[in-house]
Amino acid sequence: MSKEKQFVKEITPQGEDFSRWYIDAISKAELMSYSPVRGCVVLRPDGYEIWENIQRELDRKFKETGHRNAYFPLFIPESFFQKEKEHVEGFNPELPWVTEAGGEKLEERLAIRPTSETMIGHMYSNWINSYRDLPVLINQWANVVRWEKRTLPFLRTTEFLWQEGHTAHEDEADARKETMQMLEVYRDFAENFLAIPVIMGQKTPSEKFAGAVDTYSIEAMMKDGKAVQAGTSHYLGTNFAQAFDIKYLDRDNTQQFVHTTSWGVSTRLIGALIMVHGDDRGLALPPKVAPTQAVVIPIGPSKTRDQVVPRAEEMFYELKRAGIRVKLDDSPDQSPGWKFNEYEMRGVPIRIEFGPRDMENGQAVLVSRVTGEKRPVKLDDIVQEVSKMLDEVHDAMYNNAKTFMESNFKAFDTLDEVKAFMGAQRGFVLAGWCGSDVCERQVKEEAGATSRNIPFEPAEHKTKCLVCGEKAKHTVVFGKSY
Amino acid sequence: MSKEKQFVKEITPQGEDFSRWYIDAISKAELMSYSPVRGCVVLRPDGYEIWENIQRELDRKFKETGHRNAYFPLFIPESFFQKEKEHVEGFNPELPWVTEAGGEKLEERLAIRPTSETMIGHMYSNWINSYRDLPVLINQWANVVRWEKRTLPFLRTTEFLWQEGHTAHEDEADARKETMQMLEVYRDFAENFLAIPVIMGQKTPSEKFAGAVDTYSIEAMMKDGKAVQAGTSHYLGTNFAQAFDIKYLDRDNTQQFVHTTSWGVSTRLIGALIMVHGDDRGLALPPKVAPTQAVVIPIGPSKTRDQVVPRAEEMFYELKRAGIRVKLDDSPDQSPGWKFNEYEMRGVPIRIEFGPRDMENGQAVLVSRVTGEKRPVKLDDIVQEVSKMLDEVHDAMYNNAKTFMESNFKAFDTLDEVKAFMGAQRGFVLAGWCGSDVCERQVKEEAGATSRNIPFEPAEHKTKCLVCGEKAKHTVVFGKSY
Repeated sequence: MSKEKQFVKEITPQGEDFSRWYIDAISKAELMSYSPVRGCVVLRPDGYEIWENIQRELDRKFKETGHRNAYFPLFIPESFFQKEKEHVEGFNPELPWVTEAGGEKLEERLAIRPTSETMIGHMYSNWINSYRDLPVLINQWANVVRWEKRTLPFLRTTEFLWQEGHTAHEDEADARKETMQMLEVYRDFAENFLAIPVIMGQKTPSEKFAGAVDTYSIEAMMKDGKAVQAGTSHYLGTNFAQAFDIKYLDRDNTQQFVHTTSWGVSTRLIGALIMVHGDDRGLALPPKVAPTQAVVIPIGPSKTRDQVVPRAEEMFYELKRAGIRVKLDDSPDQSPGWKFNEYEMRGVPIRIEFGPRDMENGQAVLVSRVTGEKRPVKLDDIVQEVSKMLDEVHDAMYNNAKTFMESNFKAFDTLDEVKAFMGAQRGFVLAGWCGSDVCERQVKEEAGATSRNIPFEPAEHKTKCLVCGEKAKHTVVFGKSY
Repeated sequence: MSKEKQFVKEITPQGEDFSRWYIDAISKAELMSYSPVRGCVVLRPDGYEIWENIQRELDRKFKETGHRNAYFPLFIPESFFQKEKEHVEGFNPELPWVTEAGGEKLEERLAIRPTSETMIGHMYSNWINSYRDLPVLINQWANVVRWEKRTLPFLRTTEFLWQEGHTAHEDEADARKETMQMLEVYRDFAENFLAIPVIMGQKTPSEKFAGAVDTYSIEAMMKDGKAVQAGTSHYLGTNFAQAFDIKYLDRDNTQQFVHTTSWGVSTRLIGALIMVHGDDRGLALPPKVAPTQAVVIPIGPSKTRDQVVPRAEEMFYELKRAGIRVKLDDSPDQSPGWKFNEYEMRGVPIRIEFGPRDMENGQAVLVSRVTGEKRPVKLDDIVQEVSKMLDEVHDAMYNNAKTFMESNFKAFDTLDEVKAFMGAQRGFVLAGWCGSDVCERQVKEEAGATSRNIPFEPAEHKTKCLVCGEKAKHTVVFGKSY
């Protein structure tokens, strides 16, 4: 047992202090450790493996939709940031600068990339010549750095891992189609892989990406009612094409600027899935992303060990061969009860109890992490039964999260109602908005809630602005955000 | 066709200028582009996909041998480099420094990692408590930066991608076993996946990793006779354990330092496989790592296109379903002859020609990139025949490279002979060495060759030092290196 883990004696209950619960849960489960560098965490093997599972599935989806991966430099020359006005304003305050290297002061400072639109824009201007070169559909898996004032493991760290898609198209229609396609890839992934229900919509101008024409997002509700932006997709118009001179000769032999998009998700998804699914016992990991999907624990008196353990091993290998990420814990040093708690705390979706009486009856007992249901199943059907319960656990997690979100999502007409709601409990609010920055800012200042997005499918349409009472231009989701 | 590619009209023959050939070949095949940042290149999709194929296979091997992945910070505090004396001397000249971030000057400069022994050592000292925590078997896939004076795409770039394994063990025997195990993983991978024969051995003290007790390497011979160090594995003893206080309570309740190892390969493997296998027509990619393993090209008069193309598509899907990385080029814009050259230049292992007469005969013609053999095969057996030829191409590439290495590998007794050899042609030299730095340096100064390694299985054992004529302590491989 590591020093860090010993240090966390108990997990603070969520109701007592949600932030404390979160740190306790991820530390005790050894997903991460704080590093000696401000705001940077170490992704320990169980944390990193969640990311690997996320990567594998998303990468498959990106390739299915025609994208290929590439790799661009970590360093971005200072002059590049000057080329797109909004972009430099958005990112300049967060940049770390390399000023010396190889024993010498650099002539031009190099930023560590916070995102790669500028570098990739520069390269695309070299690569793209003609409409025949389009579309360019590239994704990058990389580390990026943003010097954040307040950090929180996974959700907001100085360095983080992400993917950033960057595509170039002949015209607006094609680029917008791509923007929407990738947002839908993210929604599908969040709901069907991470069991996180999300709200799809468009960001208001004040919340969009620095340099984008339009930004779209999926937003998820954590168990404390706060929002996490779980993925974004941007239509960048010709902003970066003009800044980096990305032109092509069109079918009529005329020079045109390309239309570009970018889209990304990051390791913050790990934070989101923990805050959506975890409980007072610790993590609860969605089966498709869990490093360990099922753990086999032999039980019963120690004198029966010699009979039970070999049969438990057989079961373990059978499940493993079937592609289930299974673990066998037959250590004699810890009691079954200790192990039950341990793997519940680590969020393993299914526990498989197996004792001498089960062996006699040719069965094992599956226990669901989420519902607590104990289900005796025949050993002959073990693979099928475990697979079935994994699906059920996924569905239960998704439905629980969906019910939670719906029950903490209220429609209001006035800022006073929103203030009262945000003061008493947390959650999302649906309200009309006139479209002015002033009213949007007032919601933030008085209710502490920012606009999350303008949902594509609001539960109802509001006709008046919650602040000024004028005609609503949009129905907006507001919430406190991480 | 991109601007960059248009720019490279012809590939310089290897015999005329090997370095020029190399740059022409990788540029024209669009594996990489130069970036605006000094010494950094962009890995374009075909280059990056080679890396993805390398990653997938190595990652599988690492996991099979019990390792798990994790992720550690990019930034390393300056004070960390002071803790291991040899390490700081080795890496300090190559470090880039972040001195400002978030609009402020940092109190302590942060280096961009050139390798992560120090950061990981610090973390291990937090994680490791008892012999029960050992061994720790972790690998990291990451970008690292070394501010090199002379750079060459893939082989030596400022930023590069690599994996670095870092393990901690109870004692020397266990750590040395790990060091050797991973060296063997690299040898097996180089030979059986990249078709690159290598020489396994131990580095001389002057060539070992900064901070290691012993460094082992696999060395490969390029077609210009120069050497590429294709992978290294280090036994670090307790050097980093002492520097970072990584202690554990052993089975007798006594505090002990752990013994650590590290081992890595990088994107320089891409450069190596190109320089080992390429020829005057361009790339020749080993089948297991090639982004496209086979390309189907419909041929024959244009009036037969409507019959031929649909059947070629069927063949394409059949091969794809069988897991072969296949491409169909049925574009009417380019002639078959142009396509033949194009895919040879790109190094695709097998071309599949398919015309109206082939269709009549129920066959297709497979053409090997390496031997040029044209083999008519039955359409009914296409998957089996392509798989078979892919294996043959791999074997032919390995055997060619092996023959080339053996015929350019000479054993000599004196420095004069070595100087003459290195002056006239390039290749590897086997010679006796007394063990003194002075003699080793003299070989470098006079013959321009450095010690590559002390091979585990030298072709013959030399008894006298090639420089001083004293009793040889080791039989060493010398060569000019990239």
